Amino acid sequence: MNPYTIIEKKQQGKSLSADELAFMINGFVKGNIPDYQMSALLMAIFFRDMTESEVSALIQIIIDSGKRVHFPDTGVYYADKHSTGGVGDKVSLILAPLVASTGLLKIPMISGRGLGHSGGTLDKLDSIPGFNSYLNFDQFMAQTDKIGCALIGQTGEICPADKKLYALRDVTATVRSIPIICGSILSKKIAEGINGLVLDVKTGNGAFMQRYEDSLKLGKALKRHGEAFGLQVKALITNMHQPLGYMVGNWLEVLESLDLLQNRGPADLRELTIELSAEMLQLAEPDVSITEHRQLLENNLAKGKAMEKFLEIVHTQGGNVKVLENPASYPHKAKYILDVRATESGFISDIDTYMLGIDAISLGAGRQKSSDSIEPEAGFRIHIEYAQKVSRGDLLFTLYSSRKEAIEKLQKDIEQRITYSDNLPKSLSLIHI
Amino acid sequence: MNPYTIIEKKQQGKSLSADELAFMINGFVKGNIPDYQMSALLMAIFFRDMTESEVSALIQIIIDSGKRVHFPDTGVYYADKHSTGGVGDKVSLILAPLVASTGLLKIPMISGRGLGHSGGTLDKLDSIPGFNSYLNFDQFMAQTDKIGCALIGQTGEICPADKKLYALRDVTATVRSIPIICGSILSKKIAEGINGLVLDVKTGNGAFMQRYEDSLKLGKALKRHGEAFGLQVKALITNMHQPLGYMVGNWLEVLESLDLLQNRGPADLRELTIELSAEMLQLAEPDVSITEHRQLLENNLAKGKAMEKFLEIVHTQGGNVKVLENPASYPHKAKYILDVRATESGFISDIDTYMLGIDAISLGAGRQKSSDSIEPEAGFRIHIEYAQKVSRGDLLFTLYSSRKEAIEKLQKDIEQRITYSDNLPKSLSLIHI
Repeated sequence: MNPYTIIEKKQQGKSLSADELAFMINGFVKGNIPDYQMSALLMAIFFRDMTESEVSALIQIIIDSGKRVHFPDTGVYYADKHSTGGVGDKVSLILAPLVASTGLLKIPMISGRGLGHSGGTLDKLDSIPGFNSYLNFDQFMAQTDKIGCALIGQTGEICPADKKLYALRDVTATVRSIPIICGSILSKKIAEGINGLVLDVKTGNGAFMQRYEDSLKLGKALKRHGEAFGLQVKALITNMHQPLGYMVGNWLEVLESLDLLQNRGPADLRELTIELSAEMLQLAEPDVSITEHRQLLENNLAKGKAMEKFLEIVHTQGGNVKVLENPASYPHKAKYILDVRATESGFISDIDTYMLGIDAISLGAGRQKSSDSIEPEAGFRIHIEYAQKVSRGDLLFTLYSSRKEAIEKLQKDIEQRITYSDNLPKSLSLIHI
Repeated sequence: MNPYTIIEKKQQGKSLSADELAFMINGFVKGNIPDYQMSALLMAIFFRDMTESEVSALIQIIIDSGKRVHFPDTGVYYADKHSTGGVGDKVSLILAPLVASTGLLKIPMISGRGLGHSGGTLDKLDSIPGFNSYLNFDQFMAQTDKIGCALIGQTGEICPADKKLYALRDVTATVRSIPIICGSILSKKIAEGINGLVLDVKTGNGAFMQRYEDSLKLGKALKRHGEAFGLQVKALITNMHQPLGYMVGNWLEVLESLDLLQNRGPADLRELTIELSAEMLQLAEPDVSITEHRQLLENNLAKGKAMEKFLEIVHTQGGNVKVLENPASYPHKAKYILDVRATESGFISDIDTYMLGIDAISLGAGRQKSSDSIEPEAGFRIHIEYAQKVSRGDLLFTLYSSRKEAIEKLQKDIEQRITYSDNLPKSLSLIHI
């Protein structure tokens, strides 16, 4: 086989065989196929798409590049949730302990780092002092079975091909391709050994797929291909037209998650977390109504069971539980805290969520390149919401950073992310399907 | 500027600024932009095309990456011919001395090596013992002015960016892109310092652009962009549905060129050479009719003036003229010479010219990768033509190679390149416009 011919075949819109895809991907992982040929192929796939059987082959090849978890078959239901990424999306931190607290299923959750403008669960977890997100394969399985949940980062043992492919996609603008996204997400989830997967496919100006039709297409493709590999899949399309909750930034989002785990916190975050969690319960227990599932989850939040499970997970993974119980005492304090106030009055008709994600990175909450370090304290609180009426002088943002120049620049610029209008903008629902 | 953003911008179909293109290309040449980002950009350009101003910027950037020839302005007309590449296309070897023999203009010709399935003038010239195709910049200009023609390969001094881009395009299936072809061809021709350019844009199953509409589009784009840089351009679309002439392979094509230079040789090769040469004369002398130009060229062939000029060029560049005067005595002899005869009878309704180009490479006439060496004696003679009536047992091909395995394999396979039909196929004209 010849890499040139394979690139050209895809470029002409033809379908590649499983052997041809394996030749390219395995060759790339081994270093036999140079990255410039792989990036040309990825770009050709971006434009030409893949057939159903090509996507299946792609998923299988990525799974086969590493180990695959096989939980012993004892009637336990294993599930995970995956979000396509947004700004302020800390749902995983709440959903995982909340669902595990019901005892109905177990959550072996492998999360990623921040990516592009969107935050990553792993970076948020790592802001908890002492927390160890690098369990090995056996520890990961054992903890999931013992306490119902483990929260880890991607290990080199699972889907190493995805890791290498991802690094290339990330620098060649080939992330936003539905077949490649399917290959990347589903391979990892299938290799986790789960039975059920709930997908939170974001849409709107803070999502990777901004247009609703594209997000729907992605959600359907993920469901279809996941099911073809024997997963039960539920996909929700949810709106990312403003940050989820009020807090953006790693430690700030942990704090907001703690609020919610203690039955406080923002309504949109609560609504989405409950809904995704209830869908997950229904995958495991389809005979119980979704209303009853929601009720159970509400109860577990109210009774502190979710918080208790979260502390158990953190404790088991070496994290400092005292800090979570009394975060005000903890020294994740930004050197600079600056307020930003409205210079106009009107209804908030648009919030440039993508740019807010980029802004959070500039404050230190994410990486511009993979070698950058993260400042756990960095980020912002947004004080307003879409469609809210604001008067000149109202508080819009509080910025947190230890980077003087960056925070001062952003204090001047961040109001540009807000569009005001004289009329109430049309309402946008949080959850589409 | 950020390479990711630039790739993404083109991927989304937006136009890049001259500064953005220069950032990518100059960065790539200097090694600051990695080849995997450049190949992703090239593939995005393949799919998204470029605007007129992007192509102009591309040409200018490639020219500015190296030196530019400036012939002293003494009223002399300088011209060159460029073919988009085919099988058996040895026109340059004849056209250059033929046109130079008229004394009406001068030909500073920079040629390339074989590429993909198509042969290269430079490889053909290099099969002449002693011939030196690597003149430096000053030698090249001086010889052109002194004897009216110099035939050289691309020097590192002219358009080094094209050389580096070409090597990447060649392995990433991004050669066949009209804006990039324009950038590559025209930059070199403009940097040669010529006034007029005749383009032989091939179409058909042995051309890079197989469909007539694509070839026409390429021809028009080359003409338009060349003229925008002050060149006089004439583009012909010519048919590459069978090898041009009968000989394919470097030394074999030199032999066929010698035939034509001595007023013998195949009709199609003669017709195309005269036509392209006449168009070139008319660029320089537009007041003389094309018929008169053709007449002059026919005369120069008949009187041996073209042959005389060819020998003068070869001699000036160190080549062994005696060998050209008496090639039968010369030891470019293939170890194996095998005939292939027809196993069917019928009209020749198709000749897979692309595959014949690949076949010639397998015999040793070209390179599969750039480090391969070429065997000057390797190639084949095709004994039949499109639309000819053939009877079982008639001679189809004579194969020449020193590679035993390759020639024996091809002896079995090469008849597959021929399609027979019971009826006379529709006639195909050699020159479209």
